[in-house]
This record gives sequence, structure tokens and C-alpha cells, in this order.
Amino acid sequence: VLLDTDACWERLRSTRNGVLGTVHHARGADLVPVVYVVDGTTIVIPIDTVKPKSGARLQRLRNLEGDARASVLVDHYDDDWQALWWVRVHGPARETAPTTEQLERLATSFPAYRDQGSVASVVLLEVQEVTGWAAMT
Amino acid sequence: VLLDTDACWERLRSTRNGVLGTVHHARGADLVPVVYVVDGTTIVIPIDTVKPKSGARLQRLRNLEGDARASVLVDHYDDDWQALWWVRVHGPARETAPTTEQLERLATSFPAYRDQGSVASVVLLEVQEVTGWAAMT
Repeated sequence: VLLDTDACWERLRSTRNGVLGTVHHARGADLVPVVYVVDGTTIVIPIDTVKPKSGARLQRLRNLEGDARASVLVDHYDDDWQALWWVRVHGPARETAPTTEQLERLATSFPAYRDQGSVASVVLLEVQEVTGWAAMT
Repeated sequence: VLLDTDACWERLRSTRNGVLGTVHHARGADLVPVVYVVDGTTIVIPIDTVKPKSGARLQRLRNLEGDARASVLVDHYDDDWQALWWVRVHGPARETAPTTEQLERLATSFPAYRDQGSVASVVLLEVQEVTGWAAMT
């Protein structure tokens, strides 16, 4: 069944990792796992200095410079398919400096972010569209 | 650390759910959770009649008709960030009728697919690029 908007936001707020999708001019959708916190109707995704980096780590930022359209999918997989659910948001996203409040929210959710300097910047996705689905509610 | 190609395929073969990314002409990257099996260098994604449907369920197929570029991300999240890893593939994808062998592979991996008619078609993603990363190996 489709989830209503309130139910979608409830699941977004009670989850903290998902997949960020951006558009790469040549190869299409680029997907990367992310952690996040919800701030109002904004998804706040840290660009951190903590997790070991892959060479392609900042491709998401290069993609957003060229095309701001972004999506985040949060989903729960289970061998019992009656327990499946997902929530997806769409909206423009941009990199910016984190506010003190955002840094505090991130540090509360993720202990690794309590160290000063662990969050270099944030990607803010302004949610314009939210869709969700659950096998059962 | 970046994973080599063999390590990426090993993780793809030992996992069975991920996120499919396609390109929507207006809103950019469209993400949807999927299950899959690996057949050679092809990711085989069932379009099933089993899981309860959301209204937007077949958007992925409409997207692929307009733009065949697809990506699948398989990732492992863990509160212990030393256990994080992901593998991502890119390539063209198209919907087609499943072969008998693909149906058998799907039925072996997913008991719900043992029922005749449970897989209506498959999306075949021909992997042209594979990238993977793990915090530790």
C-alpha cells in the first residue's frame, strides 16, 4: 500500500541511512550510500572526513554542480516480503557549510561526528516530493 | 579501500537485494529497491506479480524505455563504520522475457518465485562498469 505523507516522514525520521541518487551526465543515475538527519523538510547529508574514502567519493558533489536534481531512497529489506517498505524523496540538493544546529543533530545521531572537523560540509536536499510504500502497515 | 573487480563480483553474487537507479526525464535519478540474481555479467531483476504493488511500480520500465542507462547499488550499512561496504554497477538495461534458466535461478534464491507466473518478465542489466569500496577488507 502507498504510505501517506505523514507516514513517509515518520519513517524518514526514524531511519538514518539510505541511498543518494544524482545524475551523471554520461552514465545516468549515480547511487551512493549515505547517512542523514532530517531537519524540517530538508534531508541533511554530511560530507565527512571520517569514513575512509574511495577515489570517487566526491563524484556526488560534481554531479550536483551540473544537475541539482537529487533523490534519497530509504528502504527496509527482509526475507519476509510482508515486512518490506521504502520511502523516496526528490528535490534539488546543494552543498553548503553546516549550521551549528545541523552539526549538533549529526553528532547526536552519529557518535563519530562528535569530533570537531569530522563534518566538512553538508548536502541539503530540499524535499519537494515524497513517496512511500509498505507491504503492510 | 577500493575493491578489485573479482571482489566486487563476489559481493554481488553473495547478496540478493539492492537499489536500481534509472533516469526519469523530469525528476532525474529514480531509485527503487530490487532483488536480483547474477547471471554471468548480467544482473537479472525480476518484474514480479508477487510483491504487493505501489502505483508507481512500473515507472522503472517506462524510464528504461526512454533511457536505457541503469545502475544497481548493493550496500551494507552497519553502526560500526569499519564494516561498511558497497558495490555499484552501471550498464544498459532492458526488459525481456525470462529464460527457463533465469526462472530457475530466481526460484532457487527466492521461494516466492517457485510459483508459476510469479515472474512476469525480467530486467537485464548488462554490466559495463563495476566499482566497489569497503572500509576494511
